[in-house]
Amino acid sequence: MSKIGVCIAGASGYTGGELLRLLATHPHAEVVAATSREYIGKPIHYVHFNLRGMYRNLKFSEFSIDLILKKCETVFLSLPHGVSLNYTPKLYEAGLTIIDLSADFRLKNPEAYKAWYGYEHPYQDLIKKAVYGMPELHRAELRGAKLVASPGCNATAAILSLIPLVRNRLIHMDRIVVDVKVGSSEAGSKPSISDHHPEREGCIRPYDAEGHRHAAEVEQELSIVAGHEIKVSMVPHAVGSIRGALASSHAWLINSLDDAELLKHYVNAYKGEPFIRIVYRLPPGYPDPKYVIGSNFADIGFAVEKRLNRITSFAAIDNLMKGAAGQAIQAFNIVKGFEEMAGLMVVPPKPV
Amino acid sequence: MSKIGVCIAGASGYTGGELLRLLATHPHAEVVAATSREYIGKPIHYVHFNLRGMYRNLKFSEFSIDLILKKCETVFLSLPHGVSLNYTPKLYEAGLTIIDLSADFRLKNPEAYKAWYGYEHPYQDLIKKAVYGMPELHRAELRGAKLVASPGCNATAAILSLIPLVRNRLIHMDRIVVDVKVGSSEAGSKPSISDHHPEREGCIRPYDAEGHRHAAEVEQELSIVAGHEIKVSMVPHAVGSIRGALASSHAWLINSLDDAELLKHYVNAYKGEPFIRIVYRLPPGYPDPKYVIGSNFADIGFAVEKRLNRITSFAAIDNLMKGAAGQAIQAFNIVKGFEEMAGLMVVPPKPV
Amino acid sequence: MSKIGVCIAGASGYTGGELLRLLATHPHAEVVAATSREYIGKPIHYVHFNLRGMYRNLKFSEFSIDLILKKCETVFLSLPHGVSLNYTPKLYEAGLTIIDLSADFRLKNPEAYKAWYGYEHPYQDLIKKAVYGMPELHRAELRGAKLVASPGCNATAAILSLIPLVRNRLIHMDRIVVDVKVGSSEAGSKPSISDHHPEREGCIRPYDAEGHRHAAEVEQELSIVAGHEIKVSMVPHAVGSIRGALASSHAWLINSLDDAELLKHYVNAYKGEPFIRIVYRLPPGYPDPKYVIGSNFADIGFAVEKRLNRITSFAAIDNLMKGAAGQAIQAFNIVKGFEEMAGLMVVPPKPV
Amino acid sequence: MSKIGVCIAGASGYTGGELLRLLATHPHAEVVAATSREYIGKPIHYVHFNLRGMYRNLKFSEFSIDLILKKCETVFLSLPHGVSLNYTPKLYEAGLTIIDLSADFRLKNPEAYKAWYGYEHPYQDLIKKAVYGMPELHRAELRGAKLVASPGCNATAAILSLIPLVRNRLIHMDRIVVDVKVGSSEAGSKPSISDHHPEREGCIRPYDAEGHRHAAEVEQELSIVAGHEIKVSMVPHAVGSIRGALASSHAWLINSLDDAELLKHYVNAYKGEPFIRIVYRLPPGYPDPKYVIGSNFADIGFAVEKRLNRITSFAAIDNLMKGAAGQAIQAFNIVKGFEEMAGLMVVPPKPV
Repeated sequence: MSKIGVCIAGASGYTGGELLRLLATHPHAEVVAATSREYIGKPIHYVHFNLRGMYRNLKFSEFSIDLILKKCETVFLSLPHGVSLNYTPKLYEAGLTIIDLSADFRLKNPEAYKAWYGYEHPYQDLIKKAVYGMPELHRAELRGAKLVASPGCNATAAILSLIPLVRNRLIHMDRIVVDVKVGSSEAGSKPSISDHHPEREGCIRPYDAEGHRHAAEVEQELSIVAGHEIKVSMVPHAVGSIRGALASSHAWLINSLDDAELLKHYVNAYKGEPFIRIVYRLPPGYPDPKYVIGSNFADIGFAVEKRLNRITSFAAIDNLMKGAAGQAIQAFNIVKGFEEMAGLMVVPPKPV
Repeated sequence: MSKIGVCIAGASGYTGGELLRLLATHPHAEVVAATSREYIGKPIHYVHFNLRGMYRNLKFSEFSIDLILKKCETVFLSLPHGVSLNYTPKLYEAGLTIIDLSADFRLKNPEAYKAWYGYEHPYQDLIKKAVYGMPELHRAELRGAKLVASPGCNATAAILSLIPLVRNRLIHMDRIVVDVKVGSSEAGSKPSISDHHPEREGCIRPYDAEGHRHAAEVEQELSIVAGHEIKVSMVPHAVGSIRGALASSHAWLINSLDDAELLKHYVNAYKGEPFIRIVYRLPPGYPDPKYVIGSNFADIGFAVEKRLNRITSFAAIDNLMKGAAGQAIQAFNIVKGFEEMAGLMVVPPKPV
Repeated sequence: MSKIGVCIAGASGYTGGELLRLLATHPHAEVVAATSREYIGKPIHYVHFNLRGMYRNLKFSEFSIDLILKKCETVFLSLPHGVSLNYTPKLYEAGLTIIDLSADFRLKNPEAYKAWYGYEHPYQDLIKKAVYGMPELHRAELRGAKLVASPGCNATAAILSLIPLVRNRLIHMDRIVVDVKVGSSEAGSKPSISDHHPEREGCIRPYDAEGHRHAAEVEQELSIVAGHEIKVSMVPHAVGSIRGALASSHAWLINSLDDAELLKHYVNAYKGEPFIRIVYRLPPGYPDPKYVIGSNFADIGFAVEKRLNRITSFAAIDNLMKGAAGQAIQAFNIVKGFEEMAGLMVVPPKPV
Repeated sequence: MSKIGVCIAGASGYTGGELLRLLATHPHAEVVAATSREYIGKPIHYVHFNLRGMYRNLKFSEFSIDLILKKCETVFLSLPHGVSLNYTPKLYEAGLTIIDLSADFRLKNPEAYKAWYGYEHPYQDLIKKAVYGMPELHRAELRGAKLVASPGCNATAAILSLIPLVRNRLIHMDRIVVDVKVGSSEAGSKPSISDHHPEREGCIRPYDAEGHRHAAEVEQELSIVAGHEIKVSMVPHAVGSIRGALASSHAWLINSLDDAELLKHYVNAYKGEPFIRIVYRLPPGYPDPKYVIGSNFADIGFAVEKRLNRITSFAAIDNLMKGAAGQAIQAFNIVKGFEEMAGLMVVPPKPV
């Protein structure tokens, strides 16, 4: 058979689970190994109850470079920040396609790892080879790439909301604040006090409010888009949803623009993008992640307060999909030259 | 092109929305008309925000027999109880395939409509021609059928949970109580005080506790399965989920049976069924509708309290899918001789 | 000053937090020590964010028998099952009033501890002295009692729902099944996979379905009420609420009774009870824990399916209040001869 | 008896219900009339299920000026914007104390009503007599006032978050954006599609993003605090909580200030305030409305991103309490010279 053999390293977490869900119906790929330290030997649905019956011949296996090298052609690394780092050089040298969902290769400036993630990056040559895996910005570079650094979820929402404004230099670049609201799945599958159901449900809780590290990749990418260095402040908030992230990017327009002109900038920025949908006027008026849940769509829209020239640009995504597994599969499809929507034909349900 | 032209009457409600979602990727069917009194002329995503971009050439249209007769070969009736009734004879005579999602043709005994639904049924001949659309019970009759009465959501969960026990006469038939818990989408898309968010979220609220009308179809179908008339008490409860229904069917075993023997009865009852999954021992231990959301799966399991010989049999479904639109599409596929999973290859996401 | 000095052992959990909340405004008691192994030396609001500003002069302290003996006259033991056990004899001998919120002294039959909790009870003499702390059943014995075994939350709901039916022998006693639905706070404040927000929110998940250990105390107390030994099957379900427990007790009436007659039995059973409210006919029709949240009320009601003589009796409580801390304070007030509502004048908010 | 007779006009809504809840235990006031067009003659708990047993001798009555003049000394007007307007002059002339919870008398500039609410204000003399009912800003004027305009919920959160920064002119006044997140109870008790449970639960939905009308009162009050006119942009978001509003007010500091200096400004701004609690460093780090639910507390805090000099100032309130009924009772207590916390000694529960 001609399907590509794929490994998922770190397959028992939420992002790993989503990769398994999407790859279960992917026409050109087959999961041949799914690693998990904690659940070695257990069936996939021992953890992912939703996948009962989907992977009858697969069990979680121990992570092993040898296994991956032997069995698969592409590996999705869904491991904690700073962990996949150590395996990447060997996998890279062996010629595997690596889709890394951690932050380990997202930043081009080695200093930034120290500043935002607290470690010295040991593989500066590999950094240069990594492609930031956002198709809307790097589709051409992704084709045939060997190392993809898949974007962070809050970063994805922030960047997508700001591209039309930044590219066209419509706003004062020194006063951008991205207020993010995000559901509990973003925190991962490991239990914690702050995401214990009684504590998390119904909360509206700021976190990382002194500076969220996704700002690093947002600034890097938007600086390229702008053509000069820009800074962005990010203030995320945990809310009681399970899935979904909304970026509300607040800024001030340099010149007054009517909504029709602005709309043109948004439409142009995303022309031909298979997963971007512009929300304008029709109900519900603005993007809401509720209506992309389970899918790879990003819904984008904006609002201007004319008396103050303040604009808020919104991007709504499913944090585990366009914000993680979905975007990774989209990049994988581009890398491999598959149709871009392969495995991603998930129509979001409503209500959910 | 060779796709079957399908109409959805009552397409702006939640079940109508699910039909639209599923048919958007159905390989053998195409929606050619979607009716809605309230939203005539509006695009589909005016109501179904999730479907933005899916139905670019379709708008809601007024319900009209002529339109349906002219444009489509199969019609899904997703109208309130007692409404579709009036259109069915004409559609039937014209030779259309009718999948009726209301209760109007579910019951075989004309008296039952008066007792449970409060109206005299005017088309007793058509009642006889209707097939109760549960594939697990009526697959053979569904093939080529012209009028399918698609089951109610609570009824579906109740019946599926009890088939293995009733078929094999394992329980005392006069002491069966089905305690159902169900999410808010079951109440439909029309706002009401009792489903207003502040009132519904976090509730655990019994309703219809003096007798739920789905009991009529449950008793009808399980009496056939048992080979004699049986009675079932149903007590539904509204909970704060959006989707999902769990039937906890409490009964008492006639003879002590160990779990392995019982398991055999469950496995045999559903051998070869593409959408039934047996949950036994492995986490989460028992069926939970949370893990079938968005899909057509029904997860089935049981627990016995040995000291009392009490058994509870569980069925977990997505009330809008296996409990409504999904089961209707499954029946449609059987009627038409398509592969049974066509359009229903939705893998449920987790967490959601 | 004349307030009674009170200690709370295990004050950092949810029940401990509720005791602190209620005692903060209790007119006759003052918390003089709050123990917690994990948070020694931390201010109360380090854990109980809601109590910021309430306990300016109190910090969590280490559990110590000596401290308790020295500082307080009454101790609330809010420790895990099997832990408080070891401290009780010494506290009892020293003459303290002990309100134990664990299961350690609830059961009168020493064998039952082995069967349901898995340990041999070492203090069978103390068992005899303990009073089961449900005021509706043991108010007289509570006056002046030294050792109160405060009931379990699911048990409280189950017992309160069944007293009117069992006392008057209205139902077939061998076919009683209590289907309980309960919020996530019941599982306590310690994080776990099953109560991690993404897993718990929206779930409808049976647990302990082969026999819930609260059945032991339910059977013990209802057997006294009935005047002969009875058995009760309990099947709890985790739902996505934070607080609240609803017992739906399903049974079959021996004789047909009209609702007015039944209502009389319910009214008589709870005449004069300050925290029992009978819900009958008026909206929302049946008890829903949503409307007692934060308070010590138990709302009680029933529904009869006449064609089958099936009755379901409902009791709705806040599991942390009437199901734990509230009921414990109510018992404490009775023990000490205070007005029974002291510290418990919490009117539940709506919506919440 | 010496309690003040109080009327609540519009008592069947959520704010009316909270007034009833709080006044049920108020030591100096008694509700003598509760009006509701829709529920005339029904008992209070017919609507407010939580208040079962609290108001045994009160039924909803028709709104009538004569009744109010005859029966009560103070009236709480909890009516839709533009409705109470018409009754106020007559009530005022008759010498009643009026606490108006609508927007009808909040704004001092008559033009503003036209701009933000779409009507010409007919009683400009009364506008001058009204006191904006925020104790933290107008305590002295409230003493003995006859007409109190109780603040809006989002406005309350916005103002309280910004007072310390604006009063001390610490921020660039032309770049302030208040990103508000708020629960569903803010939309009131009337069902609507957008607050129907399946649509609202789990949403993260911007609304009024082109300009929220609470900005009018925020700018009015903060301009007084600043000593010169300032403009504030507000962008509210509906989230899936039931209660709670969080204002995240984003601004840029004029001069770098370390956190300790900033903290001093916050502490000084609210010294002696009985319902303001400063959240700093200790868990959960920043204010979260989850921990003030049911109470009149406002939790205030801040975060500075030093590299950008961006500050976000947070205020968390229960929108129905400090954002509506609680703040109204607080103002009432000040007007009448009662202890400020009378009727407001509600300790928030956790978790809830």
